[in-house]
Amino acid sequence: KTHTDCMTSRRIVKLPGFIDVHVHLREPGATHKEDFASGTAAALAGGVTLVCAMPNTNPSIVDKETFAQFQELARLGARCDYALYLGASDANWAQAHELATQACGLKMYLNDTYGTLRLSDMTSWQRHLSHWPKRAPIVCHAEKQSMAAVVLLAHLLDRHVHICHVARREEIQLIRAAKEKGIKVTCEVCPHHLFLSTKDVDRLGMGMSEVRPLLCSPEDQEALWEHMEYIDVFATDHAPHTLEEKRSERPPPGFPGLETILPLLLQAVHEGRLTMEDIKRKLHRNPRNIFNLPEQPHTYVEVDLDEEWTITGSELKTKAGWTPFEGTKVTGRVHRVVLRGEVAFIDGQVLVQPGFGQNVRNKQGAQQLLSEATQELP
Amino acid sequence: KTHTDCMTSRRIVKLPGFIDVHVHLREPGATHKEDFASGTAAALAGGVTLVCAMPNTNPSIVDKETFAQFQELARLGARCDYALYLGASDANWAQAHELATQACGLKMYLNDTYGTLRLSDMTSWQRHLSHWPKRAPIVCHAEKQSMAAVVLLAHLLDRHVHICHVARREEIQLIRAAKEKGIKVTCEVCPHHLFLSTKDVDRLGMGMSEVRPLLCSPEDQEALWEHMEYIDVFATDHAPHTLEEKRSERPPPGFPGLETILPLLLQAVHEGRLTMEDIKRKLHRNPRNIFNLPEQPHTYVEVDLDEEWTITGSELKTKAGWTPFEGTKVTGRVHRVVLRGEVAFIDGQVLVQPGFGQNVRNKQGAQQLLSEATQELP
Ligand SMILES: [Zn+2]
Ligand SMILES: [Zn+2]
Ligand SMILES: [Zn+2]
Ligand SMILES: [Zn+2]
Ligand SMILES: [Zn+2]
Ligand SMILES: [Zn+2]
Ligand SMILES: [Zn+2]
Ligand SMILES: [Zn+2]
Repeated sequence: KTHTDCMTSRRIVKLPGFIDVHVHLREPGATHKEDFASGTAAALAGGVTLVCAMPNTNPSIVDKETFAQFQELARLGARCDYALYLGASDANWAQAHELATQACGLKMYLNDTYGTLRLSDMTSWQRHLSHWPKRAPIVCHAEKQSMAAVVLLAHLLDRHVHICHVARREEIQLIRAAKEKGIKVTCEVCPHHLFLSTKDVDRLGMGMSEVRPLLCSPEDQEALWEHMEYIDVFATDHAPHTLEEKRSERPPPGFPGLETILPLLLQAVHEGRLTMEDIKRKLHRNPRNIFNLPEQPHTYVEVDLDEEWTITGSELKTKAGWTPFEGTKVTGRVHRVVLRGEVAFIDGQVLVQPGFGQNVRNKQGAQQLLSEATQELP
Repeated sequence: KTHTDCMTSRRIVKLPGFIDVHVHLREPGATHKEDFASGTAAALAGGVTLVCAMPNTNPSIVDKETFAQFQELARLGARCDYALYLGASDANWAQAHELATQACGLKMYLNDTYGTLRLSDMTSWQRHLSHWPKRAPIVCHAEKQSMAAVVLLAHLLDRHVHICHVARREEIQLIRAAKEKGIKVTCEVCPHHLFLSTKDVDRLGMGMSEVRPLLCSPEDQEALWEHMEYIDVFATDHAPHTLEEKRSERPPPGFPGLETILPLLLQAVHEGRLTMEDIKRKLHRNPRNIFNLPEQPHTYVEVDLDEEWTITGSELKTKAGWTPFEGTKVTGRVHRVVLRGEVAFIDGQVLVQPGFGQNVRNKQGAQQLLSEATQELP
C-alpha cells in the first residue's frame, strides 16, 4: 500500500476516491457563496471525487423544471463526479417519485434549517416515505425527537432512511438501539461535530460557530466517538457562506468542509483515534452501498501520510475562504487525485475544468438502480 | 338495561362507574382552582367514580416525600375513588420505580405544558422507560414528533406506553400504524378535541380556548372521529383554572371537563355518532385494563337518556365555575351515582363527604398489580 514517492522519501498511500453524500454547492441562487465549479474544486482538493449535492438552493429543487435546471448547472460547472438530490415539499409527494432514478435521493427537512424546504407535519413525512421508491435513498435532516419520529415512521412503512449529521448523545444512542432492533436506518456524522464542541464557541465567536445541528456539548461529542461502530458515514455538510455573512448581525448556519474532512480524519488516524479502514469504510464503501453509487473507474487519491501542515482558510478553493478549523495542525495531506484516469488535482492545483464531472446517475440503468439500492447496508 | 323510573316515564340506564385516567385536581399548590374535595365532587356529578390524578402540582410529585403528601391530601379530600400519578423528572429515574406499585403510573412530560415537569432529552426518556417496571403504566404528554419518538423508544425497549390527549390527524394516524405493526401503544382522546376545533376559537375567545394540545383544525377533528376504533380511552384532561385567570393577559392552558364528558358522549350517542358500547369500553373497560385498576364493587351510574338540558358553567361543582361547552344543549344526564353501595350523587346533589374516596392502589397487592398490568390491552 505504501510506496516511496519519486521526489522525496514521503510515505504516500493510495486510497479510493472519497464520496461526500452531503454538500451544499449553492447553485442556483447563491453563487457568491459557492458554485459547482468552486465547490467541486474544493472537493478534489479534499480528496473527494464524488459529491451528492443538496436541493435547498434558490429556487429549491422540487420538481422536473427545477431538477432539470439543477442538472444543467451541474453538468456545466462540476469538476468532479456528482449526484443531485431532490427536495421533498408538502406539495410534491405525488410526483417526486418520477425523478427517483435520476436523483441521488430524496431530501426531507424535518426541522427548521437554512432555506425554505421544510415539511409541515408527519402526515407529509408519511406521504413521502410511502411514495418514494423503497430502494431509492431518503435522507433526513431530523434532530432529536424528529429523528426518532422519522425512524419510527420508516420502520412502520418497512423502508430505509438515512439520518444526516447525527450530533448528540440521545441521537446516536437511539440509532444504535434501532440498529440492534433490526430497523433499517443508517446515519452520518460530520467532522465539525467530531472535532468541535460548545467548548470552541467562545474561541470561534457566535456567528462563526453557527451551524445546524448546533455544536454540541463535549459529552455529546464523546458519545459520537464511543459509538463509532454505529456511524455509517462521514459527510461534511459542506455549507459555505462568506466571511461577511458569518460576521453579520444574522449569521447563517453552516461551515465549509470539503477540504478539511480528510486531513482531520487522517490526523485522528495519526493520533490512534481512528483507523485507515474506518475512513475507507465510512467515506467510500458505505456511502457507495447506502446510496447505490457506482464505482468510479481508474479513480484514486494519493495521500502523503507524513506531511504536517496548518489548515488555513485563505488557501482553500471554496469561495467561502475561511474554515472553523483555521490554525489546526494536521498530519496527512492530499497529494494527487486521479479521477477516471485523469490527474484532477496535484499538490494544490486543480487540473480539470468545469464540465469534467459526470452525473453518476446518468450512467446507471433505472432498473439496476432500484434493484440494488440499500441491499448491502452496512 | 333500560327501566322506567319510579317517578316519571324517563328511560334510565344503569352504566358502570366511569374512570377518568387524566385529571388535574390542583392540590397541593393551587387549591383556588380546584382541590380533591371539589374535583371529586365534579367527578361524581359527571358519573365518574374513579379518577387518576396528575402530578404537575406545586410542588411537583416526584419523590417519596411529595408522593406521601399527595396521598395524604387525597385521602383527606377525595369523595370518589382515585389513583395518583408520579411525575418523571430528569433526576428521579433511578428511584421512581420504588413507588411503582403505589402510583397509578408514571407521567412523562415530553413537551412544554402547564407546570415545571419536563424531561430534557431522549436520554432522560429512555432512562425512565427502561427503569419503570414494564407492567406498571407510563403515560406521556407527547405531541406530534415527540409522540412518534416516544413510541419508537418504548418499542425499542419492548414496553407499553399510553399517549395522553391525542388531538391531530398525524398523531392518530401514527397510533393506528403502530398498532397495526403490533407495537404496544394505547391512547386517549379528550372531549374538547372531539367536540371543539379552531372553528370555535373566535366564539370562545383566545384565553378561554387556550389548552394543550391546542384546539385543532376541523380536519384533525374529523380524523379523530374516523379513527374511533383506534382510540382506547376517553379522558377529560380536567384542568381547571379560574375565569379571572382565563381572562387575564397570560391565560393558562386547560379546561374543566369532569362534568361534561359523559353528557357530551351521550349526546353523540343520541346523534348516532357513537354507541353506548363505545362509552362503556373507552370510559370504563379499557381504562381499567390498561391501568390495571380494580373493579369497584356495587358501583354504577344511572343515566336518564332522555333528559334535555343546557350545559351551564355556574352550575358545575368544579371550582372553575365555567366550561368551554357553555350553552351546549345535550340529551342525557346523570341521575344517580352509587359508589361501593352508597348513593354518592343524586339529581344534582353530591351526598358523600371528603374522605369517602379510596386509593385503589392501596387495596391491590403489589404482586397482583405488576403481574396483571397491561396483559389484556385492547
Ligand atoms: Zn509525486
Ligand atoms: Zn441539515
Ligand atoms: Zn446540510
Ligand atoms: Zn471502492
Ligand atoms: Zn329515581
Ligand atoms: Zn398534557
Ligand atoms: Zn393533563
Ligand atoms: Zn366493569
